Amino acid sequence: MNQTEYFSVKLQNDKLIFLDQTKLPLQEVYVETDNYERIAEAIERLEIRGAPLIGIASAYGLALSLKNVNKEHEKVFQSAFNRLAETRPTAVNLFKALNDLQEEFQKISDKNLAYDTLLRKAKDIHINDEDFCLKIGRNGLALFKQKSNVLTHCNTGKLATGGIGTAFGIIKTAFDNGLVNHVFADETRPLLQGLRLTAFELDKNRIPFTMQTDSSAAELMKQGKVDLVITGADRIALNGDSANKIGTYNLAILANHHNIPFYIAAPSTTIDRKIATGNEIVIEYRNKKELFFFGDTMITPDQYNAFAPAFDVTPSHLISGIITEEGVFTFPYNFIQ
Amino acid sequence: MNQTEYFSVKLQNDKLIFLDQTKLPLQEVYVETDNYERIAEAIERLEIRGAPLIGIASAYGLALSLKNVNKEHEKVFQSAFNRLAETRPTAVNLFKALNDLQEEFQKISDKNLAYDTLLRKAKDIHINDEDFCLKIGRNGLALFKQKSNVLTHCNTGKLATGGIGTAFGIIKTAFDNGLVNHVFADETRPLLQGLRLTAFELDKNRIPFTMQTDSSAAELMKQGKVDLVITGADRIALNGDSANKIGTYNLAILANHHNIPFYIAAPSTTIDRKIATGNEIVIEYRNKKELFFFGDTMITPDQYNAFAPAFDVTPSHLISGIITEEGVFTFPYNFIQ
Repeated sequence: MNQTEYFSVKLQNDKLIFLDQTKLPLQEVYVETDNYERIAEAIERLEIRGAPLIGIASAYGLALSLKNVNKEHEKVFQSAFNRLAETRPTAVNLFKALNDLQEEFQKISDKNLAYDTLLRKAKDIHINDEDFCLKIGRNGLALFKQKSNVLTHCNTGKLATGGIGTAFGIIKTAFDNGLVNHVFADETRPLLQGLRLTAFELDKNRIPFTMQTDSSAAELMKQGKVDLVITGADRIALNGDSANKIGTYNLAILANHHNIPFYIAAPSTTIDRKIATGNEIVIEYRNKKELFFFGDTMITPDQYNAFAPAFDVTPSHLISGIITEEGVFTFPYNFIQ
Repeated sequence: MNQTEYFSVKLQNDKLIFLDQTKLPLQEVYVETDNYERIAEAIERLEIRGAPLIGIASAYGLALSLKNVNKEHEKVFQSAFNRLAETRPTAVNLFKALNDLQEEFQKISDKNLAYDTLLRKAKDIHINDEDFCLKIGRNGLALFKQKSNVLTHCNTGKLATGGIGTAFGIIKTAFDNGLVNHVFADETRPLLQGLRLTAFELDKNRIPFTMQTDSSAAELMKQGKVDLVITGADRIALNGDSANKIGTYNLAILANHHNIPFYIAAPSTTIDRKIATGNEIVIEYRNKKELFFFGDTMITPDQYNAFAPAFDVTPSHLISGIITEEGVFTFPYNFIQ
């Protein structure tokens, strides 16, 4: 690979090669394995992260569990299924991918054919996500009236998906079309996905960028340095209320205050057709150690209390547009149940 | 000292004892010295920080330079003056304190009396700041209509001043009067003064508190957990526009969006009588290493760009009140030139 190439996961010679994201951006280490246990560990350790990417990697892992297996396929499959399912209990894409493969597996009468069939299915899941990203990127071009400065939050690129990414995919597509002047990337406390992962991806794509602390975004906007804001989403209600990485709601209020458009980009599968509004989204709270430690180094005593929501919910009236692979939607949002 | 006592600087037996703030909150180490060079180093290394406290410590340092000196007082004084003046080039309080002592020094005809006179002057500066803090704290009680939850940013307590603090002084005074239910403290990236120093002070004062990342403040407010916001200020223009630690303007917008009052607390000496509005305040930019490193550990390559303003300016219309030792002022502010 040349210096600008990178990938998050790739199937090659019946093995999964993945980029260990915990070492980024200081070290770029690729790991090759056909062992589903190693893939499960990688998801647990956040070597592989990002909801769509976890789904893809777990699908490959489940398929690979049957490689060279010629008896007791059901038993092996079930062990791998259970092991992979316990890695990240809240990741919706993980269960979706595993269930899709299970459904496929049950349909196969000659289990000796299961490995090939499931590997094809895993590739399909990967290719489908890649395709969604490309379409989101192309649809996102409509947001750019001229060469613009974009602000983004967290990581939504190749390191989080099976393709070019969601919000990052739009930024990349717009940049490739001469529509991006500069990107400002929030560091994204507590886990610093912006400072570590988005910085790495912007650098790899040779997109000019600047990093800032999350609380500097208001000053950036005041100085007129931001033309639009684009972030991803973890879950979107039928009315458009969107849950995303903590700090997104903060950004939406700031953008609104400065009359800067604020957009959400996500595949249509992120729309939760069972919930009418964001009030139904239960906020997940994270371990306070994510705030109080840097790596293994303690910053402050861990008997102190912390408020550590994993994400916040941005009400739809603050969202100028939601971009999916199907198009650009604007307020008021009425996604179909 | 018992477990709840602490101080930032104290003159005792003609020596300065200071708390090394770089080791907080994990270690509480007091250093005793009568060497002005050691005090200059402490200011440079941020063992002593906070604008008013730097002024006080440098005044003590300059006075102590003449301890046991019985010839060439002018030479010794000038060396100490120059050394202390070069520690933190942008700290206004530092120069104010050093100049006050220089003025005093020049008035003394018998230089053998200079040490005692200057030490008394340094103590006066200290006591004056302590007194201002107490008055700010008492004036701030007017902000509390009932037992309230307060959100604050950065560190504005005993570790930053010669007394109980400014915004922190109000919180402490209100708590002692049964008017504070809970304090939410921003971690305050990049240098984490909230997570390290404000947490330490809240803990010492037995005030119930919770820490959060700066970008979680919006979600906290949305959940109805914040009744008022109080921060300090580094410089206030005649129209009330206030410069303070980066992230303060962010908070003011969020508070405004959620109809939560937002207050600034500072001694009247923070009002810069030479500037009409915040537009005249030049924003200082910090070294990007403060974002990219944690201690000696690099997080992201330092060839990346960073936007790292030390502070931002909150326009006065977003400030519900400014509390000084003279009283509570409200918008529109017309401080006298």
